[in-house]
Amino acid sequence: MDAPALEDATAGRSGDLLMTLITVKGIEELLGMEPSGDGRSFTRLSNFEKAGEDAIVFAQDDASLSLALESRAGLILAPLKAALNGDARILAVKDPKYAFALCGRWMDSFVKHVIHDSAVIDATATVGRGTAVGAGSVIEAGAIVGEDCIIGNNVTIYGATTLGDDVVVQSGAVLGSIGFGYVRGTDGQYVRFPQQGTLVVEDDVEIGANTTIDRGALGETRIGRGTKIDNLVHIGHNCVIGKNVIIAAQTGISGSSVVEDGAILGGQVGIGEHATVGAGVILGGGAGVLSGKKMRGPGEVFWGRPARPLKEYLRDLARLKKR
Amino acid sequence: MDAPALEDATAGRSGDLLMTLITVKGIEELLGMEPSGDGRSFTRLSNFEKAGEDAIVFAQDDASLSLALESRAGLILAPLKAALNGDARILAVKDPKYAFALCGRWMDSFVKHVIHDSAVIDATATVGRGTAVGAGSVIEAGAIVGEDCIIGNNVTIYGATTLGDDVVVQSGAVLGSIGFGYVRGTDGQYVRFPQQGTLVVEDDVEIGANTTIDRGALGETRIGRGTKIDNLVHIGHNCVIGKNVIIAAQTGISGSSVVEDGAILGGQVGIGEHATVGAGVILGGGAGVLSGKKMRGPGEVFWGRPARPLKEYLRDLARLKKR
Amino acid sequence: MDAPALEDATAGRSGDLLMTLITVKGIEELLGMEPSGDGRSFTRLSNFEKAGEDAIVFAQDDASLSLALESRAGLILAPLKAALNGDARILAVKDPKYAFALCGRWMDSFVKHVIHDSAVIDATATVGRGTAVGAGSVIEAGAIVGEDCIIGNNVTIYGATTLGDDVVVQSGAVLGSIGFGYVRGTDGQYVRFPQQGTLVVEDDVEIGANTTIDRGALGETRIGRGTKIDNLVHIGHNCVIGKNVIIAAQTGISGSSVVEDGAILGGQVGIGEHATVGAGVILGGGAGVLSGKKMRGPGEVFWGRPARPLKEYLRDLARLKKR
Repeated sequence: MDAPALEDATAGRSGDLLMTLITVKGIEELLGMEPSGDGRSFTRLSNFEKAGEDAIVFAQDDASLSLALESRAGLILAPLKAALNGDARILAVKDPKYAFALCGRWMDSFVKHVIHDSAVIDATATVGRGTAVGAGSVIEAGAIVGEDCIIGNNVTIYGATTLGDDVVVQSGAVLGSIGFGYVRGTDGQYVRFPQQGTLVVEDDVEIGANTTIDRGALGETRIGRGTKIDNLVHIGHNCVIGKNVIIAAQTGISGSSVVEDGAILGGQVGIGEHATVGAGVILGGGAGVLSGKKMRGPGEVFWGRPARPLKEYLRDLARLKKR
Repeated sequence: MDAPALEDATAGRSGDLLMTLITVKGIEELLGMEPSGDGRSFTRLSNFEKAGEDAIVFAQDDASLSLALESRAGLILAPLKAALNGDARILAVKDPKYAFALCGRWMDSFVKHVIHDSAVIDATATVGRGTAVGAGSVIEAGAIVGEDCIIGNNVTIYGATTLGDDVVVQSGAVLGSIGFGYVRGTDGQYVRFPQQGTLVVEDDVEIGANTTIDRGALGETRIGRGTKIDNLVHIGHNCVIGKNVIIAAQTGISGSSVVEDGAILGGQVGIGEHATVGAGVILGGGAGVLSGKKMRGPGEVFWGRPARPLKEYLRDLARLKKR
Repeated sequence: MDAPALEDATAGRSGDLLMTLITVKGIEELLGMEPSGDGRSFTRLSNFEKAGEDAIVFAQDDASLSLALESRAGLILAPLKAALNGDARILAVKDPKYAFALCGRWMDSFVKHVIHDSAVIDATATVGRGTAVGAGSVIEAGAIVGEDCIIGNNVTIYGATTLGDDVVVQSGAVLGSIGFGYVRGTDGQYVRFPQQGTLVVEDDVEIGANTTIDRGALGETRIGRGTKIDNLVHIGHNCVIGKNVIIAAQTGISGSSVVEDGAILGGQVGIGEHATVGAGVILGGGAGVLSGKKMRGPGEVFWGRPARPLKEYLRDLARLKKR
């Protein structure tokens, strides 16, 4: 993630303290607001309990605003209507939580990215400018990693994998592993189907700790731009995951399935082979999609195993209870 | 785990054999029994099949006592009533399996703990006396690891993590990883909510291979003293897990959930966000707890997705079968 | 996997290109067919889209044969009846997909296996001839790894583990970890039951990325010859997995369970303790087998939680829908 070009925001490292200052006018610019010229500066984000004069907090509603005002926070990101409150610590913004997250991203952008000495990067691999690679991580021959990525520790990126820019891969993840496909001979023994395809991870994707994503068998596995993947997720060979998809922890997606843009998958979801989860579909935690099934409808919520529309799922549950 | 101060027990390493001797009177002291002064010594724990004169076995009931007596074991830990048997190999104790486990713990306490050369420990991290760190493990800046811990290979302990004493972390586990929380902008893109909190793992916790535990977002994730966590478990940001909790393999706990003291979670359990599993509650394998739900009742067993009291779950299953 | 002794097949590395040539007559020998003496050679396997004159594709039925013939592939492995087609690019074989997989295996057999400098192999461990060990992998004291194995990166093989020949272990897997067994004292605290047994992985087993397999407690955990295990699978202590078993991603098998030869377990299957999955049984994705249960019947399909015969499961689902 590039540091936003904010001329008026002061970011600096004060010696060993590695302190980043963010000013009110800097925040206003981040949010595309009219800059007020307010030069007050803060050094950290906080919850209410640990807040101090150097800290920014956020309040999403009236109840949390009261708590925020009771805290020792130096700046409170609050909803627009809170502007009437008059407390000088309040900065009224359209979406306080989002504004808070943008501040965090901006502050993170000053963290220095280094490649650890113990990382093993093949001479034929490409690692872009500004990318961090953690201790013990392995980037194999031919792999391409873009700019400003953060690769954790003990990560493996196999050779047929391409990562875009600003990708985050947490420790222990394995990208581009051998897919799980076998052909059974008449002797009952399995021979692996060739797994020599590729994995493409687009820009701004984030991948959780110990998650595994297989490369394509003959074709490609692809993770779309802006998609966020939690820990211990498995994505099989030849899957195509769209843009801005959310995949919570321990979800598993079998080979050749498609998850379209903006879908949201809860934790421990299971998706069979050659299934399709349509754009904007929401799968509740633990939902199961059978092989070959297509779940469609933006904003539509599916639940249960096998997954069915939430209304239907709840009706089924209720029916069980009746005599 | 400290080696118990057992004056009468003889523990030693015989050259390259690394042999630990445990005597009958040593076992009696471990169990808080009246010491008999019996100096017979043994070098290993065993099942019946592989037992020999140098081995201790245990028998929990009459059937297994018969098998134990047929084995070549040198010492048989057996229930109190077995004292009448008269076989000199029998040591009658209150809970033979527990006594056997205590012997194992005592023998383990003589294993020498070393820090492998290839471990990457930041200069600002703290590692307590007697702690082992395996090959390729990474302890980042600011992390604190207590005394007598055993950290396996290729483990990552992120900077905002504190481990107590006698903690066991198996290979590949990731502690203090970035939590999974995002705020969606009006452009449909997700920005990560700040994940800058801490993870505290109290004394005597054991964490399985390739398990992942996220640090708090703004606050703390905490794992209580004596809790045991199996392999491939996921625990999200801001969770508070109590003391002496059992969490079996592949269970996932979403952010901000609470599991109170003494709860037992079977394998592949899924718990939503902001849920509570009360003290002593038992969740059967694969049970699912919805976000925000509170399951209460010490010793109460819940099963199914969504989790319900066992009796109710069984009735639902039976009802399905009826016409 | 040994390179088959194919006198007539030409396999070679052309300088830095590392090219393997496979001839038509080489393929015929691989398949045990009458060799035609056809010396045409190819350098890669492909899907239709990326095929060229240097590539082999396969067509399993009429529809895919049409597509194959439209592609630029140099050789098409096609069903026996396609021999009538007359296109010189067709090689008619009994099972085209299996033939294609065998070609892949043969070509893979020429990949040079190396032990990476950063692998940590204890002086008392044994690693067989022709075995590759990836960066950061750890093979502990006493472990035995057979010949021609492929061990990925950052793998841990604990000391009481024995691997046969031709075993593939993908990155991040942990073999021979401490099992999850505890005895609760009257003080409510858990003491680990001794976990000092062994793990035996027989020949031709393949183990996916970040999978964990525990060693036996006092006895043995065993994975039978030819069994294939996907990513993020957990296998507990003392399990006995038969030969040619398929275990898809994120499946978990609790301690002391048995899965007999030729069983097929879908993804996210959960199996309790001391359960038995009989020879040839098929468990659908997400199926759950209760502790102590025995599922039997070769080719029998079980589904759901708790797992029941497919017919019964479907009837239950249908019944839910009726009023």
